[in-house]
Order: sequence, then structure tokens, then C-alpha cells
Amino acid sequence: MNNLVENIIPVGAIPSSDEIHFTVWGPFLHDCKVHLYEPQETVIPMEKNKRGYWNSVFKITEHHQKITYKYLINEKEEYPDPASRYQPFGVHERSEVIQFDNTQNPQDYSLRPKLEDYVIYELHVGTFTPQGTFEAIIPRIAKLKDLGVNSIEIMPVAQFPGKRNWGYDGVYPFAVQNSYGGPWGLRKLVNHCHQMGIAVILDVVYNHLGPEGNYLSKFGPYFTSKYKTPWGEAINYDDAFCDEVRNYFIYNALYWFNEFDIDALRLDAIHAIYDESAYLFLEELADKVKEYDLKTNQTHFLIVESDRNDPRFIYPKAEGGYSLHAQWCDDFHHALHAYITGEKNGYYADFGSLAQLAKAYQQGYVMDGCYSSYRKRKHGRKPQKANRGQLIVFSQNHDQVGNRFRGERLSILVSFEELKIIAALTLFSGFIPLLFMGEEYGEKNPFCYFVDHGDPALLQAVREGRKREFQAFYGDQDGYDPTIEETFKKSIIQWELHQKDKHALLWSVYKECLTLRKKLKILQPLSNISPKVYFNEKEKIFSFLFE
Amino acid sequence: MNNLVENIIPVGAIPSSDEIHFTVWGPFLHDCKVHLYEPQETVIPMEKNKRGYWNSVFKITEHHQKITYKYLINEKEEYPDPASRYQPFGVHERSEVIQFDNTQNPQDYSLRPKLEDYVIYELHVGTFTPQGTFEAIIPRIAKLKDLGVNSIEIMPVAQFPGKRNWGYDGVYPFAVQNSYGGPWGLRKLVNHCHQMGIAVILDVVYNHLGPEGNYLSKFGPYFTSKYKTPWGEAINYDDAFCDEVRNYFIYNALYWFNEFDIDALRLDAIHAIYDESAYLFLEELADKVKEYDLKTNQTHFLIVESDRNDPRFIYPKAEGGYSLHAQWCDDFHHALHAYITGEKNGYYADFGSLAQLAKAYQQGYVMDGCYSSYRKRKHGRKPQKANRGQLIVFSQNHDQVGNRFRGERLSILVSFEELKIIAALTLFSGFIPLLFMGEEYGEKNPFCYFVDHGDPALLQAVREGRKREFQAFYGDQDGYDPTIEETFKKSIIQWELHQKDKHALLWSVYKECLTLRKKLKILQPLSNISPKVYFNEKEKIFSFLFE
Repeated sequence: MNNLVENIIPVGAIPSSDEIHFTVWGPFLHDCKVHLYEPQETVIPMEKNKRGYWNSVFKITEHHQKITYKYLINEKEEYPDPASRYQPFGVHERSEVIQFDNTQNPQDYSLRPKLEDYVIYELHVGTFTPQGTFEAIIPRIAKLKDLGVNSIEIMPVAQFPGKRNWGYDGVYPFAVQNSYGGPWGLRKLVNHCHQMGIAVILDVVYNHLGPEGNYLSKFGPYFTSKYKTPWGEAINYDDAFCDEVRNYFIYNALYWFNEFDIDALRLDAIHAIYDESAYLFLEELADKVKEYDLKTNQTHFLIVESDRNDPRFIYPKAEGGYSLHAQWCDDFHHALHAYITGEKNGYYADFGSLAQLAKAYQQGYVMDGCYSSYRKRKHGRKPQKANRGQLIVFSQNHDQVGNRFRGERLSILVSFEELKIIAALTLFSGFIPLLFMGEEYGEKNPFCYFVDHGDPALLQAVREGRKREFQAFYGDQDGYDPTIEETFKKSIIQWELHQKDKHALLWSVYKECLTLRKKLKILQPLSNISPKVYFNEKEKIFSFLFE
Repeated sequence: MNNLVENIIPVGAIPSSDEIHFTVWGPFLHDCKVHLYEPQETVIPMEKNKRGYWNSVFKITEHHQKITYKYLINEKEEYPDPASRYQPFGVHERSEVIQFDNTQNPQDYSLRPKLEDYVIYELHVGTFTPQGTFEAIIPRIAKLKDLGVNSIEIMPVAQFPGKRNWGYDGVYPFAVQNSYGGPWGLRKLVNHCHQMGIAVILDVVYNHLGPEGNYLSKFGPYFTSKYKTPWGEAINYDDAFCDEVRNYFIYNALYWFNEFDIDALRLDAIHAIYDESAYLFLEELADKVKEYDLKTNQTHFLIVESDRNDPRFIYPKAEGGYSLHAQWCDDFHHALHAYITGEKNGYYADFGSLAQLAKAYQQGYVMDGCYSSYRKRKHGRKPQKANRGQLIVFSQNHDQVGNRFRGERLSILVSFEELKIIAALTLFSGFIPLLFMGEEYGEKNPFCYFVDHGDPALLQAVREGRKREFQAFYGDQDGYDPTIEETFKKSIIQWELHQKDKHALLWSVYKECLTLRKKLKILQPLSNISPKVYFNEKEKIFSFLFE
């Protein structure tokens, strides 16, 4: 991959046939060495180049030796590799070199679903199965395919502290979570999916790193004090030395494509990627991915989560856009959820009418420059030049369920009949649909927010932060405790339900809807038709017609 | 003007034939009243509307009565009007209602110079004449016209504390500085300029307000803690309640056009206007100005100062731009200055070669995505779709002279022969040229930074801040003291020099260059031709050819 994309420096421990090449960025370090623990303890000096990268080479004497290491910096402290490929003992301990038997063999990409044909199934590895591993997912893929799903979206897998986390506290963007089965497990899952014709989307977090085990600042200015994110220090995308921080994350994106054959990335909360450059990091990322695809004759997609309702991110370059491929469309969810549940708290304050639901069907964005009473200002912009195949809609997702006071799914909030209507409303919307694991059979277990930090002060901070967040919605009531194992355990879905009673019926509704959707081109995003919508608020009538 | 631009609320004290309408935004105030001091002391109640504006009407009993007032808020404190039209006794005292005899009579706009024909003369009212008033400028306009200038750019005139200030500490964006002669003086000057066929550009500051006499926060959330500017609190352009803050500044722009017949605004340092909206304040401003122009059949220009080297600001909407009309091109200055003076400190570190000067001639931006050693990152973007008539170039301006350690003009730094070359290099560049008052005859007096605050702690802070700012350039040397009158006085230009000795010779060089430029269409921005540039660093040869 080294020469595939111009000027992108591979970072981390990179194996070739007879050596491991170590590279780490440390522009201000006066010394950096590899402290090898296995196969034998030794210290390997490194040399710094002009761009601030420290390099060294270690000759392999025996194939597939276990190699573990930390970086010894300034001859006094040592830390895991910021680009570690594996953290066998968690976020604070040694990094391990990963040597795969082979690189992924790119299949015929023309057989993979196109973005506008995606039917996405979002899952959280830890709670999708009782085992909580990649491997345990594999037996369920055939069932999902049968349901009509053709792509799974895996919540973030970058190594996080402990064993329980949604994934947004990851601190090693290149290391696949050890408790999930590490890089081998992810590879196996991806390979299986591809054999079944299922695409794999990976959720990646480029807007912040978690609070525990985050040693990047020991190496270089990965963060900037120019901005603050809701979750901690802002990543340095536009301040001094940002070029190499961009390199790190762009290389990360290419790493998933190149080493794991991931089909698409879902970029978490890009509204927290602060960047005032003339050439935005996100645009650069899209350009580099395009360059990589052109050189390798592959196709990859970048899907963003954004609360800005700014279509510029998904517009093509010719329209002055940043040419990211698609985005999550939260407004569709909010319009649907607020109308059906009648909830008016928090951001639902802006929603609740059929007129808004109609707008969602017509253009995805409801907040398109109109006044938001939740934000107390005008919000968004008309997505005039966006295609329906660029907008991903859902009636539930990990955030919309999990960021509730009690993590209730719609199955708890609305009637069974309403669940069926919601399925049809989402799947026949003419956008790209996304299901959240369990919704297809009306899972009743909650999806709670949970963490497993090592530091009691941090656990307390999470508890309090969570409480604060919910005040807009629920006032001072008590919720569940995100820091205890019980909260995690009760979030594990009961997959076997999908064959039982009403759950099986709902499953068949989803399946029938997806079958019909597949038959009728007019219901698919590629047609790019906005439906005619008729509604009557008083009579509670809502109908839409694609023609 | 009230109905000219949709949804823009006029703020301040607005006279009609028999009444004064008072409007002030105060969304969280539980009470607001007009405390009238003249013509008779009285308190007038106000009513708040849904958007948070307090309104009241005062009947005029006698034409052109002097009317002064403050707003009494929450029945305990009183402050001048945030949209005061005049502060006769400075920034802390009463506001005065302004009633002009007539509105400006729009002349035939087709006679005014077009933007791409502008030859701009930047001046500071306080130091352009010994009197330091608008009126004192008038007798010099004919001379400037004779020189070949067709537009003057006036440094900011919004009321600032004391009598000496560059204008960037203004705290009443609608009030013309009392010590300069107030609104009547500005009107008179503009009228005279228009009679002479000279356009008037006003420098306005929409990125911050000064530190003294800034009472806006007493009324509403004009500022946000989301961002910090180098000069204080960031103005709230994208946070809750920002719609009405935008209204205030958009109305300000229209106010200058409507009440003073100003031709163009120069928007100070837009890189400090932080805004993450899908619809940027600056784009909204440009749209509203366009709407105003269409309805009134007038033409106004928005010229930005930006250090982002992001051409999106000046690209048309069709290219995904924000459609501001033109921008200052600092890179042209830096390339020219660094090469001729040999200076390498501060941001000049990125410049100094003829290759860079050549790039500046070809496309304006030198930093077009290449690495900046000053910023320690890549900077800017190629301005491929910008026209030469959108870039304003200069060999000197108030910042480049005044933000030096000793405020030295080029006349102090380079030889007389070099001054002549610099004149030709700038005026024949094929961009829009801007001269800084005095450069046309080689003024020797410095242009220093000066302030006149009332608060000793603030004065000390300015002294120290100034020192810090210069450390990158000059280390710990001592400069002049910006807080004493002497510094201001020595900045006043010696206009009479333009007829003397070598000064007169330089003046004639400028005049001849501008005459030739006017004759040769190919040297004008409208032709939009990039010159062929030949240079040889070793032989110090630089030539450019328009053909």
C-alpha cells in the first residue's frame, strides 16, 4: 500500500517478508526507540526524518513470531504505539505486531452491492450475540441475508478500555478490540460476509479519542486547543502540524480498506471535526480514497454522520461540495419518531407534525434553513442537489435508542401495529434504509449506554455527564447506571425471539417489505424520485406515492 | 428601507416625519424602556415582540430637536443603544438620534467606477490630515483624483473609546466617530467624493467589538463562548439566537449603503468570523446585499480581508462559493516585501524568492495548498476560478506598515529607486491596486499603532499584547508606546511633502503609472490575463509580460 497513495506515510509496525518496519510520528521528541518485549527483550534505536517520523527496522528470524513492543520516548517514558494494530492486554499495555497469512484477496467488486442499493443492518459486536465476538456474528449472516439485508454496519471496533463500550471511547484507531476477537476475528467476519454477498461498513471515529489510554499527545500535537468537542480535546485538523495528523487518519481509512477489505466507512459525528482550512480534512480524505480506488480498481464509500444539515459535504466537487458519498439523515428519524410517539422533549421539540414528515419524504432534511426552536436559530440548508441514494434513513439506531433515559426501543414505546407501519414507512421511503439490530423482530431488551473504564473518577464523570445530557429530556429522574456490567448484559439482544410469536410476524413484515422494495425499482434510491405526499393533520392521514 | 429586504429588522432610533421609532433586541430582558434625556427627561415604556425586539415610538413635537437617550433595562441599569447612530460624549454616555435633512440622493450608478476598475487609496481619518476629520479630507480629493485614484477606503469609523484609534476597537457599529465629525461629516465627504466620481469604501469590523464601552451583552447573546478571537469574544453567528445577531450586522451593512451612499464595504479579518452553519453569515450578508441592490437598482461591493487563502469566499454561487465580490491578497504583498527588503521574520519566513513573486503575479495566492513553514502546515487552495478583478494587491497598507515594530513605511526600508520599481510592480500587476495614504509620495513618518482607552489596566494590556505580538519578528526589543498621544501625532502624514523634491518625483511616477495603466486595457483586471513571468533568482532578474 505504501506507494498507492501519494504522500501518505504508513504508520505503525508494518511487516514485510523478512522484517518489521516501525514508524511513529514524534516531531518534538528528542529520542524515540522501539522497546521490544517479545520475541526477546531489546531496545532498537530509531531515526527521525524531516517530517518528524521516527523509523527503524527489525529483522524477523522466524516466521510468525509473536512480537510485542512499546515506544521508549526521550529515554524515560514508554507508551504503546499510537498506530498499534493490536492491544492484547488492553489500552495501557504493549502493542503487538500483526502479520496476516495473506492480504485479503479482493473479490470481483462488481458483485458487491452499490451504495444506493444498500440495505444496512447496524450492529454492536458486544451485544449482538451472547459471546460478543466477531466470530459469533458469522452464523447469523445467512439469516440477515434472507431478511433482505445486504450490508452490515459495525459500530466502532477500535480498542477501547475494558470489555464494554459502544466503541466511541476507542483510543487505538488501528487496533481491533481484543475482547471482540481482534483483527483476525474481524477479517474472518468480513470474508464470510463477502462470500455471502454482504458488504461491510465500519463505523470510525475521527472527531475525538476516548479519555482513557489516550497517549497520543505524548508523541505529538494530535490535538488542538483551538476548539473543544463535547467529548474531549479536538483533533488537530487545521492547526500547526496538522498535516501529519491528517496523514494518520487518512492512512487509517485506507488501512481498513487495504487490510480488512472493508467496503465503506461511517464517519462518526463530523460536526465535531473542527476545521477552518481552505482544504478540509474531510475533502482531502475523500480525495485520497478516490485516488486509492482509482489505482486499485476498487470502490469504497464514505458515509458521514452530521448534525449540520449541510449538503455541501455530500455534493460533488463540481457543485463546490466535498464529495463524501452519503450521510445519515437524522431528520427523517425525528419526524417519524416524534409523530408516532408524540414525544416533544429535547430535539423532538422541532418535530411532531405530518407536514414535517412529508418534508422528510420529499427531501430528507426537515431543518433546511427554517427556524429550530430546539437550537433557537435557523438551521440547515436545502439539499437541492443531493440524490436520495445519498441519504440513509432509519426509525431506530444505536443513538436514538441508546441515548434515551432507559434505552427503550420503539417496541417498548409504540404498539405492535405501529411497528409494522414504521417498518413500511422506512423501507418504502425511497432512501437508503438502515435497521438497528433487533428492530426487525421487535426486540424488547433496551440498548443502554455502557462503559468499562479503569478509573473510578472517570466512571463517576460518565455517570454525571449522562445525567446532565438527559436533563433536557427527562429532568432529574434517575436512569440506569452506565458503569455496571448489568447494564451491558441487559442490552444483549435475544436473537432467538425472531422465530417466536409476534416477533416472527414482525420479521416477516420486514422481509416482505424488503422483498417488495427489491422488486419495485421506483422504491429504490437509484430512481431518485421524490414521492407525492398527501397528509391531513386533523384526520391523521398520511400517504405517499412514487410515480 | 424597512421593507426593502425581507425579514431584516431595522434596529436603533429611526426617525420618520413626525416620530422616532426605537427598536432594540433584548430577548431575555424582562423590561426595557427608553430613558430620554433630551428634549425633556422622561421614560418611555417599550413592548417586546416574539423575536425579542423591544419597540416604542416617540412623537416629535418640533423638527430637528436634539434627542438623546439611553435604554433602561430591567428597571435598574441603563446603557447606550447598541445600534446608536451617534455617541456625542463617547462610548459610555448617551446616544443621540440622527435626523438627516434628506436621504442621500442616489446618483447615476453607471457613472461610479466598477469594482474591477477600482484604484483604491486607503486612509485613516485621524492621521490623514492634521485636523483628523472627514471634512479636512475633502480638499485633498481633487489631488487624489488627479493622481489616478478613483476610490478611497476609509479605515473603520464606528465609535471607539477616546480620540485615537485605528478603528478596530469600535463598539457602536452604527455610530460614526464623534471626533472625526460624526455622521454629518462622513455624509459630506461621501457626497463630495461622488461629485468627483470617486467611490467610497468603508472598512467595517464584523468579527469582534472593542474591549471598552462594549455593552452589547447587557442586551442579548451577541457573543458566544464557542470560539475565541485574537481580540476578544467571538460574535455569535452560529449559536443559539444568532439569527438576530446576524440581523444586526446585515442591517449595519445596508445602513451604510442606504443612509451614507457608501459604495463598498471592506470586511475586516473574516477568518475571525467563526461560523459552522450550513448557511454562513457571510453568504447570507452577500445574498441580502444582492437583494437590496436588485430592489433599489444600485450596485454595492463586499470586499473581504481573509488569511485563509480560501477562494470559496469569492467564488460565485454556481461554483459553490459564497459570492463575496473581492478579497485582499496579502500573499502578493508578502512576496514583494520579503523579496525587496530581504526580511525573513514572522510570516515573511514563507517568502523571499522570485519564484514566489512570479506565483503571486500569476494567481495572487502564493500559499495555494503548499507547505507554510510559518504555519507549520499546508495552507490555502488554488484560486482557479477567481478573476484578477477579485484580488486587491498592495505594497503597503495600514497593517503591513502599522503592525511593524516601529511602524516603518517602505520609504524607510528601501531605496528611492526601489520605491519607484515597487510602484510599477504593484500598479502594473493586472490586479486591483490599493495605495496606503502617503506611499504615493514616499511619506517618511511612521504609521504607528495607537489607542486612547480610559482604563489604565487596558492600556497596560495593549502595551503588553503589542510586545508579545512582535516577539516573532523582533524578539525582546522595545518599540513605541501605543498608548501615548505622541505616537499618534508622529503618525500624521505630511501631505505637503508631495510637492517637494524627490517626493514630488515619486508622486509623478505613481501618476504616470496610473495614467499608463488606464490607457492599456491589458494591464487592467477586466482583461483577466495572467502575465507570462520570467525570472532568474541568481541574476535577480524578474520580468512579466501581458499579451
